[in-house]
Amino acid sequence: MKKKGELVSFRPDIKIVDCTIRDGGLVNNFEFTDDFVKELYQTNIQCGIDYMEFGYKASKKIFDVDKFGKWKFCNDDDIRAIVGDNDTGLKISIMADVGRTDFKNDITDRINSPVDMVRVATYINTIPAALEMVEHCNKKGYETTINIMAVSKANDPDLDDALELIGKSCVDTVYLVDSYGSLYPEQMRRLAGKYLEAADKYNKKIGIHAHNNQQLAFANTIETLTMGVSYLDSTVSGMGRGAGNCPTELLLGFLKNPKYDIAPVLKFIETQIKKLKDDGVIWGYDIPYLLTGRLNQHPRDAIQFIADKRTDYSSFYQYIFDKDI
Amino acid sequence: MKKKGELVSFRPDIKIVDCTIRDGGLVNNFEFTDDFVKELYQTNIQCGIDYMEFGYKASKKIFDVDKFGKWKFCNDDDIRAIVGDNDTGLKISIMADVGRTDFKNDITDRINSPVDMVRVATYINTIPAALEMVEHCNKKGYETTINIMAVSKANDPDLDDALELIGKSCVDTVYLVDSYGSLYPEQMRRLAGKYLEAADKYNKKIGIHAHNNQQLAFANTIETLTMGVSYLDSTVSGMGRGAGNCPTELLLGFLKNPKYDIAPVLKFIETQIKKLKDDGVIWGYDIPYLLTGRLNQHPRDAIQFIADKRTDYSSFYQYIFDKDI
Repeated sequence: MKKKGELVSFRPDIKIVDCTIRDGGLVNNFEFTDDFVKELYQTNIQCGIDYMEFGYKASKKIFDVDKFGKWKFCNDDDIRAIVGDNDTGLKISIMADVGRTDFKNDITDRINSPVDMVRVATYINTIPAALEMVEHCNKKGYETTINIMAVSKANDPDLDDALELIGKSCVDTVYLVDSYGSLYPEQMRRLAGKYLEAADKYNKKIGIHAHNNQQLAFANTIETLTMGVSYLDSTVSGMGRGAGNCPTELLLGFLKNPKYDIAPVLKFIETQIKKLKDDGVIWGYDIPYLLTGRLNQHPRDAIQFIADKRTDYSSFYQYIFDKDI
Repeated sequence: MKKKGELVSFRPDIKIVDCTIRDGGLVNNFEFTDDFVKELYQTNIQCGIDYMEFGYKASKKIFDVDKFGKWKFCNDDDIRAIVGDNDTGLKISIMADVGRTDFKNDITDRINSPVDMVRVATYINTIPAALEMVEHCNKKGYETTINIMAVSKANDPDLDDALELIGKSCVDTVYLVDSYGSLYPEQMRRLAGKYLEAADKYNKKIGIHAHNNQQLAFANTIETLTMGVSYLDSTVSGMGRGAGNCPTELLLGFLKNPKYDIAPVLKFIETQIKKLKDDGVIWGYDIPYLLTGRLNQHPRDAIQFIADKRTDYSSFYQYIFDKDI
């Protein structure tokens, strides 16, 4: 195993990307209070977080703005209402889904926007469309990433081809994404090795976005970062769809870079996350997510099971198991 | 990294040791209903679990039997009331703490007992006393293990000496125990390498007992098992002191040995674990456990914090951080 850095050293190339609003928004329909988002912004600055992702840049031609909170659309003005001129070390990121973003109209010159980085989320079969978006955003002046989702469903030759194609593009960073929380550390290390090889060849950076279906989001994140992965997605208390993500507080506890501080995020959990949970917003590891993760399935059935307040885990398992045959 | 087996293969040397009653008993004062213990016993048989640990063999000269549930003492008759003659493939284990067990009186011939294995829990400085207990139990006919607790506090030369000493004894299995849930996979692999080297030299087996303070219990278990560790401690839903243990259902989801079946444990969670949780029994990952784990401290302050229903995480962190200085 290639290894970069030691447990007691720190790596200046590491960047933490806080996805609480974006991935957490999938849990509460992006309906965060302004107070929550403002306090998270201040918390991220104090913790030394590198990027804060405000949400999706979803197309208003496809999605009804009245049916979602504003962070599904991330208008520049809404971001500015939180960050002003953002005269800080924290950069601002948004996510743009292939096929669900009106990027030609909605993503305009960076110089007029508070946004620093656009992350393009794509399945492996829509990479050409993702590259078109990346070229657009790059020309407009943004940092860019390509996040290849559901890589646990991709086969090796396709992934190799995809990494070659992406390597030759202008994108800055490529993300290894365990969408279904199905991958074990051994598999993540193997995939990270593949991504890092392409990164070396084409001078890109590699990121990781993990899900916690099998309580492996943090483990997979630190195992791959040890190999050289440097863009690390996390969310406060792991808030995110289904089983959620790598918790920021675990990651901050691990990293040795003195710019990072865990204390502000602990305060944020006290003041804001506790309130969300008390209000009944639900996410995080639970048995049905373990089961979809184990079977390498999309978590939608597990999300419905939890929403229905069911606890008949064994019949649920039989149901999703039979679906796969 | 040495590696034993592939992800799709199975290792016949693997043994799962269910510690739900023993480590879980630390959460509810060993006050399980007979119904719970009987159903767990049947569940373990159906799941293909290899050992079921019924509890501690605590000295009645030191502990008042009226102040604890019966599984702190594990009378042979109480075990027999659950297992009868135990004419099954599931073996029975008990734990004996150094200095807290009246082993000369209470651990008698195996031929008259339902117990198959005695696990001796020791700190590194009490290993000579642990070896005396192991010699006793071995002569009485039991399988034995030595579980070196709090290894994250031990230094390397002491641990090397300890492993040499244990290697030369009659013990069957030596356990790597992350008592405080403070060790990262990289550290666990290094320690497992050390234990496995001693095991090779002296023909012993190595076990792992992990805690979930940093959501790493499952990851650390599967990472070390891949290297050759073969006795794997787990508990249903991770029930155990503080942040709890490696959840049996995650482990059963990972292992490829066709003798193991996850479905019965899912049923047990539905029928028994849910009831415990509804009754207010609390365990599992939470912020204060992450913080004691991160600082390599005993979880007692975190357990008290949770019991007091406090949520002022940042002041708690400052308090335990200052204690260390």
